[in-house]
Amino acid sequence: MPIGGGEAALIRRYFHTLTVQRHGVELGVGDDSALLDVDGEGRLAACCDTLVADVHFPADIPPEALGHRVLAVNLSDLAAVGATPSWVLLSLTLPEKDPAWLERFSDGFKTLADRFGVALVGGDTTHGPLSVSVTALGWVQGATGLRRSGARPGDGVWVTGTLGDAALGLALWQGRGSGVLSGDPAYLAGRLFRPEPRVAAGQALLGTASAAIDLSDGLATDLSRVLEESGVGATIQLEALPRSPAFIAEGGSEAQLLHGGDDYELCFTLPPLEEAALAHLRERVGVPMTRIGTIEATPGLRGEAGDGTVSALNPAGYDHFAGEA
Amino acid sequence: MPIGGGEAALIRRYFHTLTVQRHGVELGVGDDSALLDVDGEGRLAACCDTLVADVHFPADIPPEALGHRVLAVNLSDLAAVGATPSWVLLSLTLPEKDPAWLERFSDGFKTLADRFGVALVGGDTTHGPLSVSVTALGWVQGATGLRRSGARPGDGVWVTGTLGDAALGLALWQGRGSGVLSGDPAYLAGRLFRPEPRVAAGQALLGTASAAIDLSDGLATDLSRVLEESGVGATIQLEALPRSPAFIAEGGSEAQLLHGGDDYELCFTLPPLEEAALAHLRERVGVPMTRIGTIEATPGLRGEAGDGTVSALNPAGYDHFAGEA
Repeated sequence: MPIGGGEAALIRRYFHTLTVQRHGVELGVGDDSALLDVDGEGRLAACCDTLVADVHFPADIPPEALGHRVLAVNLSDLAAVGATPSWVLLSLTLPEKDPAWLERFSDGFKTLADRFGVALVGGDTTHGPLSVSVTALGWVQGATGLRRSGARPGDGVWVTGTLGDAALGLALWQGRGSGVLSGDPAYLAGRLFRPEPRVAAGQALLGTASAAIDLSDGLATDLSRVLEESGVGATIQLEALPRSPAFIAEGGSEAQLLHGGDDYELCFTLPPLEEAALAHLRERVGVPMTRIGTIEATPGLRGEAGDGTVSALNPAGYDHFAGEA
Repeated sequence: MPIGGGEAALIRRYFHTLTVQRHGVELGVGDDSALLDVDGEGRLAACCDTLVADVHFPADIPPEALGHRVLAVNLSDLAAVGATPSWVLLSLTLPEKDPAWLERFSDGFKTLADRFGVALVGGDTTHGPLSVSVTALGWVQGATGLRRSGARPGDGVWVTGTLGDAALGLALWQGRGSGVLSGDPAYLAGRLFRPEPRVAAGQALLGTASAAIDLSDGLATDLSRVLEESGVGATIQLEALPRSPAFIAEGGSEAQLLHGGDDYELCFTLPPLEEAALAHLRERVGVPMTRIGTIEATPGLRGEAGDGTVSALNPAGYDHFAGEA
């Protein structure tokens, strides 16, 4: 999960003086990935995400899904800055050495890594309560990288794919267990357990999108981060939020669309002049992209219902420690 | 802790196919840091170490010491390949949000980071059982980097600083607590809690040493890794092992010298022709370096006592899961 809200405040408070001092750091703590100028062509992108059992995933998640997921959430952070993934480091903390579990975990990890041509270059295995930490490194070539801070009034607000699927999938998984997962519920659980990082979309949006973030903590929370970093606001059309057929069939809620985390779609903003370019780009990448609203000068996030009523949308996504502050 | 022994086997078994496939990976899983060719000048070095409470550190460690230590062990991994540290990512898993603890932790982390000009560029804060994970990135300029695999028969075996201090410090800490730590015990506890990564020594040894490793798991274990990777053996003179005055005064044992982990000194091998160069280098860096033995063609590690008797030394350092295999 990217640092934001209570987490961002915590990191900024205690580590701020560390984040700004070194030449070459173009984008540091507080965006999806750091962007580091390495004196050559392009920029090195680096990000780090830890998943802890019972906090970020149900402890009974299939090990393949955990292997996939911990890599996917990091590739998603790279996608959000438009980077091409290169290398990963894996730190595994395991309560016991269980060959069957490791076999399945590594299967899920490797299958996704192979698909993106990512090499595992280092890591660490330790004994302790189950958690998995991945650092992913990638490259942004010939562009400055997508950031959260570039949205301007008049830009469209867009998302890739569909929203709320993972949140609904989690509710179904928790309510029914794995036994009855077929059809639409299986699709939704798949969105939770095997999110697809939007790497190609992020690369394609370089030089086109004015800002971007990946949706790990829910649309309202993550989009609010873009608005805050950009010093703008937005109104989104609630009826425009893209829903999958499975989400509709299983009766997903508006709260899941707005606040459900873990979809790992990209949310980006697009200057009106770039809309024609986006039509081509969308075709090339093969990922649906939907315009859901407009950036405005007035700060804050608002939702417009089908009847035209507009109300404030408060971030309510997942944020560690937020409840304890 | 670097991956080795049981851990190395575990990672190789499950993740092997991931570690070799990508262009640009010069040194991957199994050395102290990965070395990555980034198409420009120099190589990117990357490493990752996780410290778990009650596994890698006593849960009552002063928070400043933990902040220092988690960064130091990673800078030590960079030092072992001769890299200059640049950037770090920090992943904190905390049972609760405790401002006083965080303040002290970040103090220790920042003081060391500032001293080495390292910028914190990303991270993650999550709720869960206390553990701290750092990924460190650095650069090896104009050289191929120090590796574990270059030792040749006839080379001298050398170590920086003194051995066994951290192990003796841990024994004193566990036996007496913090109350009585002054004088020699305080020095030894400082070696445990605030290890000094040998960054300048690692850089200076580039192009001079034939192989290097940092001593995290004890001399016998870590030197055995060099011997194995290089396809050679060694005999070390037990009386030559460098002891600090505090170690001698507090009655440190030979087992602590040979098997005590956490000293984070460098162990390296040096062709005889480079010994003259080392004398100058040692002066410039200001770190003691002691010749403790000789690389031989016969595999295995042997210790020669003062009376000339030679016996096999088995690795007995710290290795997670080794006891469960």
